[in-house]
Amino acid sequence: MINYFSSDFTLGILGGGQLGKMLLYETRKFDIRTIVLDPNAEAPCRIACDEFTRGDLMDFDTVVNFGRKADVLTFEIEAVNVEALEKLESEGIEVYPSSKTLKKIQDKGVQKDFFTSHEVPTALYQKYSSKMAFLEGLQKGEISLPLVWKSTTGGYDGKGVAVVKNLQTAEDLPETACIAEDLIPFKNELAVIVARNPSGEVKTYPVVEMEFHPEANQVEYVICPARIDAAVAEKARKVAEKVSRAYEHIGLLAVEMFQTEEDGILVNEVAPRPHNSGHYSIEAAFTNQFEQHLRAILDLPLGDTESKAGGVMVNLVGEEGFSGNVVYENISEIMKLKGVTPHIYGKKITRPFRKMGHVTIVNADLSKARQIAEEVKNKIRVISE
Amino acid sequence: MINYFSSDFTLGILGGGQLGKMLLYETRKFDIRTIVLDPNAEAPCRIACDEFTRGDLMDFDTVVNFGRKADVLTFEIEAVNVEALEKLESEGIEVYPSSKTLKKIQDKGVQKDFFTSHEVPTALYQKYSSKMAFLEGLQKGEISLPLVWKSTTGGYDGKGVAVVKNLQTAEDLPETACIAEDLIPFKNELAVIVARNPSGEVKTYPVVEMEFHPEANQVEYVICPARIDAAVAEKARKVAEKVSRAYEHIGLLAVEMFQTEEDGILVNEVAPRPHNSGHYSIEAAFTNQFEQHLRAILDLPLGDTESKAGGVMVNLVGEEGFSGNVVYENISEIMKLKGVTPHIYGKKITRPFRKMGHVTIVNADLSKARQIAEEVKNKIRVISE
Repeated sequence: MINYFSSDFTLGILGGGQLGKMLLYETRKFDIRTIVLDPNAEAPCRIACDEFTRGDLMDFDTVVNFGRKADVLTFEIEAVNVEALEKLESEGIEVYPSSKTLKKIQDKGVQKDFFTSHEVPTALYQKYSSKMAFLEGLQKGEISLPLVWKSTTGGYDGKGVAVVKNLQTAEDLPETACIAEDLIPFKNELAVIVARNPSGEVKTYPVVEMEFHPEANQVEYVICPARIDAAVAEKARKVAEKVSRAYEHIGLLAVEMFQTEEDGILVNEVAPRPHNSGHYSIEAAFTNQFEQHLRAILDLPLGDTESKAGGVMVNLVGEEGFSGNVVYENISEIMKLKGVTPHIYGKKITRPFRKMGHVTIVNADLSKARQIAEEVKNKIRVISE
Repeated sequence: MINYFSSDFTLGILGGGQLGKMLLYETRKFDIRTIVLDPNAEAPCRIACDEFTRGDLMDFDTVVNFGRKADVLTFEIEAVNVEALEKLESEGIEVYPSSKTLKKIQDKGVQKDFFTSHEVPTALYQKYSSKMAFLEGLQKGEISLPLVWKSTTGGYDGKGVAVVKNLQTAEDLPETACIAEDLIPFKNELAVIVARNPSGEVKTYPVVEMEFHPEANQVEYVICPARIDAAVAEKARKVAEKVSRAYEHIGLLAVEMFQTEEDGILVNEVAPRPHNSGHYSIEAAFTNQFEQHLRAILDLPLGDTESKAGGVMVNLVGEEGFSGNVVYENISEIMKLKGVTPHIYGKKITRPFRKMGHVTIVNADLSKARQIAEEVKNKIRVISE
């Protein structure tokens, strides 16, 4: 086995945001040497890695030159130069997840086609190469309102996704290649994270339930385990494992799903990395998702995915009407509540709906945790000075 | 309330070892700006703090100049210049624990006198200002063999403490001021960590049980909760709280105790900081000791001290006969076991009995955790290349 611990082995991470920051807790815990590339000099990962490089994740030369300094390379954001990853792989650097996996996920149109060709249940969709093509499709009746519009690339923090109920909304959408999906009436949004290492070991986390903020299209609560029938949970887990097998990914694969009105499972989208829906695991699971990702990409044995207690996660997003130096109003109030742990990502500037942190609530009694989560949500406000 | 989170507020930490490193996980989680002072350029805290300064913790000017850059100052090691802390306090910088607390703990002779004057039960002892005085005391029958010898300052990693059974061992001891204590036959070594904040809020962790390595005088297993009678645990908790009240400390106070053959409780020694006996809490407790120390010294509400599951901690110390670049033999083997999390402190060089890391084993069933801990202990070896 390669000696990763307190050695010269170097893990490279593309992206220096909050996911990278939480991954760095684990590389520190294992004393694994890390280098991080991010365009922002103030990125949350600027400290806690061994070497921080400022640079463009979409620039071929920047990524290749950075990657050559690593023994294993991973990423915390899908928007990276995939040709650079291919080049690095051809030079013998291990990239996990691989460029092959990323190419099947990075573009949401390709992702949907992959689901279809692998018989993964998903909502019906049409792909369009431009806004004009999309509007024409709507005109021609290829698709009908209401629908879900998704930009094929670059979506994050609720951007790049919209529910389109009328023509005006459609016409106001940005100019970009997109997919248009059937708007599925659903009971629940669910997610399952599957971990897989190069030796082929696979471990699946429990099904979690996501409650979305109706306007911002961002997750408001993640609840683990999901409060659903055992049979539905089992079905969701099986679908997630099927998707995992289809991708043959290395590392984590987060699979977001809809539980339909008829208790069917439709895959919404996937992400080949630690995921917002797994943040609860830092406090609640025997092995948190960041440690698990590390174990997976380094071909270490995967850890136990079960939970020590019930967990609820609340996203802290910038409040509407506030932009500027962030203030977490009432944070000491929520810290009085039982089993509450705030995570502050380290972004100095808040903006409406920007993901600034999250709070985990852990309790032996899940309904109690959910109740405390609501208190947290009602008390804390992410505002500016 | 002061805005600690993603602000310009600066926490200074004296000492950059593993305790500081684990404290930095929490400052990162809360995005609190930190500066660290340590003499070693390769100290575990050299990364993950905002600013690392290399310097002598016992040098007055170094500590004062460093401390002036902080709003609140804490330490992760008792061997710091206490006059410098007094100077900083006089300038209005908050130092927690205070110089006053530290002065009553730093010197083990003063610590024992403090126990006596506050009617804290402790083993009988004599203080000696030099090795010669100690040997004379032995000669004159002031103390008798077997006894426990402790250097009054500078003990760590099992150094500075010795069980003296014969005159030869006594004569081989180093030249230093010391205390000589009765050797207490005991059933168990116990420890309790008490947290206290400036507002006077107090929270006490469960009683843990420590199993020592017979030769190295280092803790081999820490077990939480201690497998002792509820009445004895309650007594230990009460004694720890009495010690905490006597010191009026801010931050954590770790109280090490003996459970005598007659189920009496004698305080062995105290440490005003996160402690080896509390490492289990990172995985097992609702609020781990490092987050708790931070909450306490920043006058934030204290967190829940209870456990999510049973926890056992195994220290990883350098194996005898190995010095040099460290290798954690069979670490991937132990990572296969249920609920096992290794912590690697980041010291590149191993030496016999040097504390290199620890492993936590968490399980709903404590006896199962203890069993897995033994497997861990038997499998992993801290050796050199």
